[in-house]
Amino acid sequence: MRSVAIIGIGQTKIDEQWERSLRQIAAEAICAALKDAGHESADGLFVGNMMSGVLDQQNNLAALVAEASGMNPAEAVKVDAACGSGGAALRAGLMAVASGELESALVAGVEKMTDRHPHEVTAALATAADADYEVEMGVTFVGLNALIMRRYMHEYGWKHADFAPFAINAHANAMHNPFARLHHRITLDDFEKSAMIATPVNLLDASPIGDGAAALYIVPAESVFGGARILIAGSASVTDTIAIHDRPDPLFLGAAYKSAQQAYRQAGVGPQDIDVFELHDAFTIMSALSLEACGFAERGQGPRLGLDDHISPSGRIPLMTRGGLKARGHPVGATGVYQVVEVVQQLRGECGETQVPGARIGMAQNIGGSGATIITHILKAEL
Amino acid sequence: MRSVAIIGIGQTKIDEQWERSLRQIAAEAICAALKDAGHESADGLFVGNMMSGVLDQQNNLAALVAEASGMNPAEAVKVDAACGSGGAALRAGLMAVASGELESALVAGVEKMTDRHPHEVTAALATAADADYEVEMGVTFVGLNALIMRRYMHEYGWKHADFAPFAINAHANAMHNPFARLHHRITLDDFEKSAMIATPVNLLDASPIGDGAAALYIVPAESVFGGARILIAGSASVTDTIAIHDRPDPLFLGAAYKSAQQAYRQAGVGPQDIDVFELHDAFTIMSALSLEACGFAERGQGPRLGLDDHISPSGRIPLMTRGGLKARGHPVGATGVYQVVEVVQQLRGECGETQVPGARIGMAQNIGGSGATIITHILKAEL
Repeated sequence: MRSVAIIGIGQTKIDEQWERSLRQIAAEAICAALKDAGHESADGLFVGNMMSGVLDQQNNLAALVAEASGMNPAEAVKVDAACGSGGAALRAGLMAVASGELESALVAGVEKMTDRHPHEVTAALATAADADYEVEMGVTFVGLNALIMRRYMHEYGWKHADFAPFAINAHANAMHNPFARLHHRITLDDFEKSAMIATPVNLLDASPIGDGAAALYIVPAESVFGGARILIAGSASVTDTIAIHDRPDPLFLGAAYKSAQQAYRQAGVGPQDIDVFELHDAFTIMSALSLEACGFAERGQGPRLGLDDHISPSGRIPLMTRGGLKARGHPVGATGVYQVVEVVQQLRGECGETQVPGARIGMAQNIGGSGATIITHILKAEL
Repeated sequence: MRSVAIIGIGQTKIDEQWERSLRQIAAEAICAALKDAGHESADGLFVGNMMSGVLDQQNNLAALVAEASGMNPAEAVKVDAACGSGGAALRAGLMAVASGELESALVAGVEKMTDRHPHEVTAALATAADADYEVEMGVTFVGLNALIMRRYMHEYGWKHADFAPFAINAHANAMHNPFARLHHRITLDDFEKSAMIATPVNLLDASPIGDGAAALYIVPAESVFGGARILIAGSASVTDTIAIHDRPDPLFLGAAYKSAQQAYRQAGVGPQDIDVFELHDAFTIMSALSLEACGFAERGQGPRLGLDDHISPSGRIPLMTRGGLKARGHPVGATGVYQVVEVVQQLRGECGETQVPGARIGMAQNIGGSGATIITHILKAEL
């Protein structure tokens, strides 16, 4: 298997983009990545998307996006792993190039979520859970995360405010990211007084949806000469049961643990080597669980990293340096690609006020469902 | 890129399976393929499916199916290319194994379409077309094919009955396939008197939907010893515009031409070497267009192959030997996998009354949308 490098990135601002279609948003990010890579097309297009069928009445999305981006007759396919679709699309593109089947691939994530009534969006998000055994019982996706968070607080004795640093850090970092959806700082007081959604998850525990697209251009590493190369040094996708009640321990992300271990092994690194970590902070509880499963904190001690101020761009393990799902925004099927785009920006040293000094190794972890599909990528800047 | 072989197949009968869930149907086919291959799991699961989000309120389908099939923690992803999803899933699995990233993969296609009101299914099928520029104008998927067929008849002077042999052959062959949805022969008289759906497409031009799943187990060819090996000798996916009105010639499947040419080149064969061809006969007109694009007939002369009796199992180019989409049935996202399963059955000599004598090289062509995504696979039995 040959090594693969990222040579182009593109993204749109995450926002309510009512005046633009799904294909236009996708094409904007793709064309930006093509331009950044200095190419006019690629051999294949891998599109991460979760809900175009449900919300936009559009399947066969990748063919549509290929046409809108001027990429016909390139192979094109849509990949769905719910909110993990973006990471899964990168996996698919990576294997296509690593196999030698394609010489280049465009990996994109796109989602358009704000045109519909919130009830429809809530129902669409619930399709990431088990339709027969969770959703049928009336639980929403936020509700599932609330059940996990409540149990976690009970088991380990945390209070709600202990999760605040994850959200505060994300909002602070998003201030410097022009593509982020939310551009306002929040305080501990804001966090504590925020509107309740599903106890104990309140509005500032949760990430906002949005319309947006991000894209990556990948090629065999051997074809890249001169300057720094951004290599995909580790890539692993692992599944767990989709229904939370089927897991032996709902407070441990087993798939995150296995996925991170595989990616560490491939990259020849460990948690201590990671300079920046873009994790899947759809809800603050997921930040804690991800940090623990990936070896950055002991079981039940994830919130400690935030409280001890280790997660800012100058901290021990900088998180959500461009705003994370919490403040950059969470256009679900696109999120996994945004994360990797942002790690590339860090490794290129393009992050300005939130630049992690000397960042050379970065990790992105994308989650589909409440821990059902977990995809970890480790990137290395090779000088 | 290493060569890949198919060592296991599985399928369910295509039917109305109202008493069984999507995951149960998928697991039945997967478990059959695992048993056939003599393995308990695989490193990855690639699920072709088009409409689980729209009709079953279930995304993240691959994680769900992995759990139902006992395949956790294997990597799992759903692949969508509309009715070409099955073929696209095989491409994804193929690249995963060919790259060396995985040592084995389970490729499945599944669809559950009969629980819903026909109006909902018609709307769900239309998501394979361009939502903004075709469906918004009120055209259904059958309607698009009717427009193509009418134009084709006008341009080349065929009458409707000239397409009958495609349907008659498919129904005759399905009589001997226990997994087929339809088990009744049809005559030219039946064909001509059948109910009109969208002029000139009548009920016997069109394939029936259904609930069903099919699965393949693939491994590196170098790991297979003893007996015949079924190799994936050619595999190519090509896109065209999704909207038919954007194509320079709506009567030529440009993506089928390019896809077949790539697959022929990879396999080192030409149309004259193909012993059996499972094409995408969603409508009789698509049989004619596919045969022409793949080099079996001159432009506008596809129906001639049926009229001259060249398409039966003992003919020059045997088509739909297990019933095709027309009579085996068309559970959309599963169809591409059924086609490949059936080619494997031919190459193994397991087709009884519809066995093509001495079949060694077979081709399957799967189409997403009205020609937008076309995936061609060529299999070779290597003794």
